[in-house]
Amino acid sequence: MKLYDFSGAPNPRRVRIFLAEKGVDVETVQVNIFEKENLSPEFEAVNPRRIIPSLVLDDGTVIDESLAICRYFEAAFPEPALFGATAKEQGLVESWARRIEQDGITQAAYVIRNENPRFEDRAVAGLTDCPQIPELTERGRKGLSAFYVRLNDQLAKSQYIAGDNYSVADITAMCAVDFGDFVGVEVPSHLAALANWRERMAARESSKA
Amino acid sequence: MKLYDFSGAPNPRRVRIFLAEKGVDVETVQVNIFEKENLSPEFEAVNPRRIIPSLVLDDGTVIDESLAICRYFEAAFPEPALFGATAKEQGLVESWARRIEQDGITQAAYVIRNENPRFEDRAVAGLTDCPQIPELTERGRKGLSAFYVRLNDQLAKSQYIAGDNYSVADITAMCAVDFGDFVGVEVPSHLAALANWRERMAARESSKA
Repeated sequence: MKLYDFSGAPNPRRVRIFLAEKGVDVETVQVNIFEKENLSPEFEAVNPRRIIPSLVLDDGTVIDESLAICRYFEAAFPEPALFGATAKEQGLVESWARRIEQDGITQAAYVIRNENPRFEDRAVAGLTDCPQIPELTERGRKGLSAFYVRLNDQLAKSQYIAGDNYSVADITAMCAVDFGDFVGVEVPSHLAALANWRERMAARESSKA
Repeated sequence: MKLYDFSGAPNPRRVRIFLAEKGVDVETVQVNIFEKENLSPEFEAVNPRRIIPSLVLDDGTVIDESLAICRYFEAAFPEPALFGATAKEQGLVESWARRIEQDGITQAAYVIRNENPRFEDRAVAGLTDCPQIPELTERGRKGLSAFYVRLNDQLAKSQYIAGDNYSVADITAMCAVDFGDFVGVEVPSHLAALANWRERMAARESSKA
């Protein structure tokens, strides 16, 4: 089994943190997105979608999309449960993870992918001949600001994102907020519950993965 | 329990088909997105994200995002398994469902949301004051065309989207392709494997849900 990974991007980081929380070691191969290594013929032969992370099983099966890779490991190594235990928890964890992906990660990606010259003509992960759309950076910035407030509201009511237990929703949110910071939309300092939660997340051993 | 639903949109349809395949009946409330009923104060009190579908449990818990709602029902009613049985199947089903959401549903939504006057200033589901970006309709059209080819390639090799078994990836793909048709990007008639699969999907009782 091999995990195609890139240490400089937020989505592969979600998988690394997930594996660290599970205590599972997987062989990784670094593919530098900034240097367009994911668009090389060599990597296209691995996964024609050309996205990172991609997991290749020993029988050659390719699983891409960060949370799909996490689902594979959740089923293979059920403890600790990171997608929720009860039906309600499972629904809430998935709901929050998806909210955070759309309202956070997607918005930060809109900013960097449509603004940074590195991504000229590849404004969508895995695509070439896909021009940047400057208005999307504005949509992304607005989206991120609203996202931080909503996350803070939730964390004022709840110890972890999806309730009383740490889950993949926290992993996704941590990567989303750090990604938002990275693209230049800082978290306002008055959002105290969010700041407190970020400190708790950063203190976990897995945050270094 | 109540499912806030809209019979005219592709995402709520995914949940209805899923429930039909499970044989589960749930009380539904229609919220007309075209008429902006999801943006009303009444619905905002139900779910501040203002998106459809939304599931409200008897204890008041709100679960939104189509596949999060499906996850709740998968855990509550495990048979038949629609998210895969083994770890590999679970990873593949989630991977395909997400590919189809991004490469199909999101692209079709880009077209209609950034082109149709109904969605002026609400180009993203649940948001107001979000102007349309005409270039996104072009990105969406190109994306859909590439998506159809990729889906056809997969269906030339595999009876169902994610392998030998019907799954939520088929439900998502059926809604994505119908949505693509609906926004005016037709499936090319030479994609025979895709056409054959569509016929098989349409023949299932659940397709009428």
